[in-house]
Amino acid sequence: MRCAYCNKEAEIYVENLGSWVCEEHFERYFLKRVDRVLRRVRRGSSLLFGISGGKDSIAAIHSTDLLKEKYGFRIGAVMIDTGSDECLRVFNELKDMLGFEGEVLSLRDWGIEIPRDPKLACFVCGVVNRYLLNRYAVERGYDYVATGHNLDDMAYFGLNNLIKHSLDYLLYQYDSVTEPVPELRMAGKVKPLFWLSDSDSLSYVKLKGLPRCSTKCPDGLDKQAIIKPILYEIRKKWPPSLVNFVSSIRELVRMAEHPQRKVNLCERCGYPTSGKICAFCRLKESIGGLR
Amino acid sequence: MRCAYCNKEAEIYVENLGSWVCEEHFERYFLKRVDRVLRRVRRGSSLLFGISGGKDSIAAIHSTDLLKEKYGFRIGAVMIDTGSDECLRVFNELKDMLGFEGEVLSLRDWGIEIPRDPKLACFVCGVVNRYLLNRYAVERGYDYVATGHNLDDMAYFGLNNLIKHSLDYLLYQYDSVTEPVPELRMAGKVKPLFWLSDSDSLSYVKLKGLPRCSTKCPDGLDKQAIIKPILYEIRKKWPPSLVNFVSSIRELVRMAEHPQRKVNLCERCGYPTSGKICAFCRLKESIGGLR
Repeated sequence: MRCAYCNKEAEIYVENLGSWVCEEHFERYFLKRVDRVLRRVRRGSSLLFGISGGKDSIAAIHSTDLLKEKYGFRIGAVMIDTGSDECLRVFNELKDMLGFEGEVLSLRDWGIEIPRDPKLACFVCGVVNRYLLNRYAVERGYDYVATGHNLDDMAYFGLNNLIKHSLDYLLYQYDSVTEPVPELRMAGKVKPLFWLSDSDSLSYVKLKGLPRCSTKCPDGLDKQAIIKPILYEIRKKWPPSLVNFVSSIRELVRMAEHPQRKVNLCERCGYPTSGKICAFCRLKESIGGLR
Repeated sequence: MRCAYCNKEAEIYVENLGSWVCEEHFERYFLKRVDRVLRRVRRGSSLLFGISGGKDSIAAIHSTDLLKEKYGFRIGAVMIDTGSDECLRVFNELKDMLGFEGEVLSLRDWGIEIPRDPKLACFVCGVVNRYLLNRYAVERGYDYVATGHNLDDMAYFGLNNLIKHSLDYLLYQYDSVTEPVPELRMAGKVKPLFWLSDSDSLSYVKLKGLPRCSTKCPDGLDKQAIIKPILYEIRKKWPPSLVNFVSSIRELVRMAEHPQRKVNLCERCGYPTSGKICAFCRLKESIGGLR
């Protein structure tokens, strides 16, 4: 099989293109799409990566690192310790390899424990991640939190929020870059893999020989486990369909005239919330109590 | 099995509710949803139904007829003769039953023939239907064209336009009612079944003992044949998902600030088009020639 762009042997299948490409053109394809996101971030910004150790966060930080000089970015990373030694090892290996500023955050230091019930665990993990990444970024002077969310995640979020009729996430978060709001102590958000799929980031970490952690969170009960395969089925039939789906929703959202989101500072911790007490502080009260 | 609303035996499964209901509550459910659309149409309006003879157009005109006094509607109907005697018989039977003003339009009179190639046939049939229904409505003084498009069609249109990244249909047509624009010779559009599914209209025609035509158009090659089952799979898992999906898209579209659609009058026939010559006139030139 020949590469779709040159005469070389094609080694990697790119689902969103429906084409096989050689290693060189795959890397070009991948970095071009990461660049499409990064060029929207203000030059000279500092980006804090939340690293889980899985293929996506690893591919996101590694590819951004390759492009950071171009935009004068400072890169740092944190890992939230969920008890996997393998993930910690991957984090440290990557830190040595790329030489970024990095830290491991322990939930125990924050008085939080992830519950064993997988359904509850997902919710807690989500709240804790969002909160700690933002807080750490703001406290250490990072402008943006960068995450490994990819196109398949965005397609899932899009469809899931449409079928739940919950437009809030779409209206306020459905983009590859959202700007920081310093007066509300909100870091911006960057998703370097916004235009790349699950299989692309897997191909990337394999191609680059990067370490990655194989520990998976228990998502058997998850809606993702039903909706993502459905989306993949659509893409198998029409390769550009998920890229189009995500662009379409993003475009509709951008055209939508909607009120500013109501955000206050939490009465307990001083970080953003739409109510009086933020979800993290409420969580700490209800399931924490370790301090 | 008991009805979800009363103690009677449940006979009909309503997919969008995920519940079984009795005949009486099914009828109530059905007419309530039709009423939700009709109350958005100006009182005293006249509605021209395009009747194919299938379950949807039959259920649409019959249920609207039951509610027409409430809103002072005048109802009329046309059938575009596609060569099925069974469909013509159904149309005439229904006309006698409900006593509406009705006419059969022959494509030959318009110098058009539907091609045999199913892919081309779908396109031609679509152009011809839209054009003739609108033109007939405007010429005979009807305010709206009413069609049998149901929730499953809207979910399909929504997903299909998102994965094709073609937002035009969504931005200008994705609603249960669109208003007439007399200066552009555009009748309004009403979709009485906007909140009801395929299985609901089938249950309705069975319950009411209405005639219907079983001739199906050849849709084996159609995108619908792949996407609709995928949507049904999602609904099977989460009954309100498609209602939510359609509402979400409609809400996003309503919030979207977008330029007015550019519409002119066709230089040949004087009916609306976005170019100089309308699709119908172009079609007549290219595949017509019977006159």
